[in-house]
Amino acid sequence: MIFLLPVLHVTGLLTAGLGLAMLLPAIVDVAADNPDWQIFAAAALLTWTLGTLMALATRRPDTMRMTVRQAFLMTATVWVALSAFSALPFLALGLDFDDALFEAVSGFTTTGSTVIVGLDHLPPGLLLWRALLQWIGGVGIVVMAIIILPFLRVGGMQLFHTESSDRSEKIVPRPVELVGYIVSVYVGLTVACAVSYMIAGMPPFDAVCHAMTTLSTGGFANYDASMGHFRSAQIEWFAVFFMLAGAFPFVAYITMLKRESFSLWRDPQVRVLMTLVVAISLVLGVWVARSQGMAVSDGVRLAAFHVVSIVTTTGYATTDYLQWGAPAVALFFLLTFVGGCTGSTAGGIKIYRFQVLWATVKAHVQRLVRPSRLVTLRFGGRRLPEDVPASVLAFLAVYIGTAALFTLLLAMTGLDFVTAISSAATAIGNVGPGLGPIVGPAGNFTTVPDPAKWVLTAAMLLGRLELFTLIVMLDPEFWRG
Amino acid sequence: MIFLLPVLHVTGLLTAGLGLAMLLPAIVDVAADNPDWQIFAAAALLTWTLGTLMALATRRPDTMRMTVRQAFLMTATVWVALSAFSALPFLALGLDFDDALFEAVSGFTTTGSTVIVGLDHLPPGLLLWRALLQWIGGVGIVVMAIIILPFLRVGGMQLFHTESSDRSEKIVPRPVELVGYIVSVYVGLTVACAVSYMIAGMPPFDAVCHAMTTLSTGGFANYDASMGHFRSAQIEWFAVFFMLAGAFPFVAYITMLKRESFSLWRDPQVRVLMTLVVAISLVLGVWVARSQGMAVSDGVRLAAFHVVSIVTTTGYATTDYLQWGAPAVALFFLLTFVGGCTGSTAGGIKIYRFQVLWATVKAHVQRLVRPSRLVTLRFGGRRLPEDVPASVLAFLAVYIGTAALFTLLLAMTGLDFVTAISSAATAIGNVGPGLGPIVGPAGNFTTVPDPAKWVLTAAMLLGRLELFTLIVMLDPEFWRG
Repeated sequence: MIFLLPVLHVTGLLTAGLGLAMLLPAIVDVAADNPDWQIFAAAALLTWTLGTLMALATRRPDTMRMTVRQAFLMTATVWVALSAFSALPFLALGLDFDDALFEAVSGFTTTGSTVIVGLDHLPPGLLLWRALLQWIGGVGIVVMAIIILPFLRVGGMQLFHTESSDRSEKIVPRPVELVGYIVSVYVGLTVACAVSYMIAGMPPFDAVCHAMTTLSTGGFANYDASMGHFRSAQIEWFAVFFMLAGAFPFVAYITMLKRESFSLWRDPQVRVLMTLVVAISLVLGVWVARSQGMAVSDGVRLAAFHVVSIVTTTGYATTDYLQWGAPAVALFFLLTFVGGCTGSTAGGIKIYRFQVLWATVKAHVQRLVRPSRLVTLRFGGRRLPEDVPASVLAFLAVYIGTAALFTLLLAMTGLDFVTAISSAATAIGNVGPGLGPIVGPAGNFTTVPDPAKWVLTAAMLLGRLELFTLIVMLDPEFWRG
Repeated sequence: MIFLLPVLHVTGLLTAGLGLAMLLPAIVDVAADNPDWQIFAAAALLTWTLGTLMALATRRPDTMRMTVRQAFLMTATVWVALSAFSALPFLALGLDFDDALFEAVSGFTTTGSTVIVGLDHLPPGLLLWRALLQWIGGVGIVVMAIIILPFLRVGGMQLFHTESSDRSEKIVPRPVELVGYIVSVYVGLTVACAVSYMIAGMPPFDAVCHAMTTLSTGGFANYDASMGHFRSAQIEWFAVFFMLAGAFPFVAYITMLKRESFSLWRDPQVRVLMTLVVAISLVLGVWVARSQGMAVSDGVRLAAFHVVSIVTTTGYATTDYLQWGAPAVALFFLLTFVGGCTGSTAGGIKIYRFQVLWATVKAHVQRLVRPSRLVTLRFGGRRLPEDVPASVLAFLAVYIGTAALFTLLLAMTGLDFVTAISSAATAIGNVGPGLGPIVGPAGNFTTVPDPAKWVLTAAMLLGRLELFTLIVMLDPEFWRG
């Protein structure tokens, strides 16, 4: 029981905070003269009270230092508890239990798949709540990825342990201060995004909501047509810019601020992500322009918008890109696995893991050719710690294995093969859209059978917590003294 | 040039041998009074002459010992050259160049995808040639996997280096003797399979041809309806038995013979393969029986036959199992990646790699839970050599990456997404059938566009040579002094 106290304490504190956040949609609904405000106010009160009581009941005067196992349990508990409480307003507003939880988890994990049809006619409070969920989930994952996961060494994340806590560099001395920096950067980028959207002609409320779901690479939109509603090339280019901003490593921003130098391009993940996105967008854009009979500039904009949307795991769409033909379908399916940089709001396998994989494969080939050759694995010029390749490769194996398992489970609920495999991939990668008429960019997850919604809800949580944060609990050792 | 001499010498000798093999279909066609015998005789003469000339021209009085790089080059050259010469009879009998090469490579790599429609009416010589190709390719891959690949250390194969050449065990002292044992076991099993098929009522010629394509886990059949032509439960169970026999590690057979003990079950790969196949067949069989309204015994037989056919990478079918519904489609797609045991005729990722992956992932989880714990990776009770996990995981990454790349290429030739991704998987795994009406068990690769046939031909060769045997040649170091 003492083992659980600090875990429950932190969960209680964050739950209480979530309750306070529910007051924002309540205020917006009061301003809009919408009776929903009562629901948000009641949910806020309930959530805040339960959270506060839990925090108080588990408070202990002695130190709250956590062990590794407690940190794992806390990470999982926080994500599950906050997702469950986030579902309260959806539930009170008439969604089924499975729909409400799906929407909340899809929001909190910044996935962006929705089961709500008719977004265009929703009251502002509910739209703001969806956006807020993604925004809170987004900053939560950045904090988790920069402060907690490197310490837990999940899936090769120890690589970033030194980077964020290296005393010799003295970029940021303490975790609390680091959280402050992360939140500041996040808020600053969100404000910049909202202002940009407004300059491009988006109404202020939409601009704020979409800025939140852009920076969090979440992808919830206020309209069934997603970003396609606005029919504005300018808004789309701003979205491309800020989706990428949300998928860049936040540590690089902080280094940039501290050193007052433009260090973003020096980050190895950023270089690879940008090269990948630019190259694919150009090739796809020219091909789309030719095959669909449009101007090259339009083709490249459409390609860039959707490639960035999928690679950053945001999930916005302005058109049904699956109509572009089989090569586009195959490409977007593969891009669903890529993901953004580690230490950002993006999901997926993530760029640095591909870099480590590339280094490992290259070393294997070099050793095959000349068995006596000494090969050093490097990442961004630095020598890779010895245990990183195995960790990354274990992650890859479990990622692929989980996608396979969930494809099978989803097919057993009655989904066809393409819907099953693509929705498994999109849920684990926290992307949003899959393939086919049901879960594709023109579809809606509401028509998915209920058991499939539960499976996808579990997949989104597993993916968001980098799989191992939950998988470690299957080891009996985890629960021993 | 001196670097190439032993490579070309071996290739020449084996090409000459292939020419001699072409005399068999010639003899059969003479007996059947079919004029095709002239084509086979001419092809035999041409192939034997060119092979012999190449061998003579590259003979050197001094030792023919090979370096690692020469062994790589030889393996690739032999597979490509023999595939090309094997296409000669198909070409002469009227197939297009791309179809002839596809059929030859599909045969020689024991894949079993066919571009020929109307097998039921083909002359016996051509049917025998298709079966012979798979039979030769099958024993070729066993020799390669037991003698050459462990020495090259491709994708974790060094694990089996000790097993086959461990002097202390003294199971088999020399490679030449080892080849003798492999061929004896292979011939013995093939004869047993042919006799079993005949006892079950298969005509002798069909029994010999199908025994060859069963033991080689190739899957070419003499009828468009594949094994479904015979409508015999007994034949299907014999096929299950001998497909598995072809997918078991041949080293285990040799150990069994030498020690006169039943050591097969002691082999870790055999245990996992059998457990997997039995468990999936039972669950799938009961489900099929219930959902299709048939007796449980029929359901289990159908399930076992097709699960074993795909997992052993044979590719026979007696019915279009894709009609069983989405769960079956998803399951068979995933099984396409599994493969049999290493050191057998089967393709795919292979069982031991999953065992090494499992050990690596388990160790990663254990280290996450207790960072101080010392974890030893084991395979079949023995400690895993240190470089094996990284090799296996590099192989997995390249396997998945190759499947992704070929899916994209195939989609660009105009194939739909499901056909593209499943035919990429089935070609790289040397399985045979994919998903959908075109490349599924009820389809035929003849309707696939020509560029896609080239892509699939390359994929079959890459997969058969365990990817890295060809990929090492992309390293500039490979070609340096």
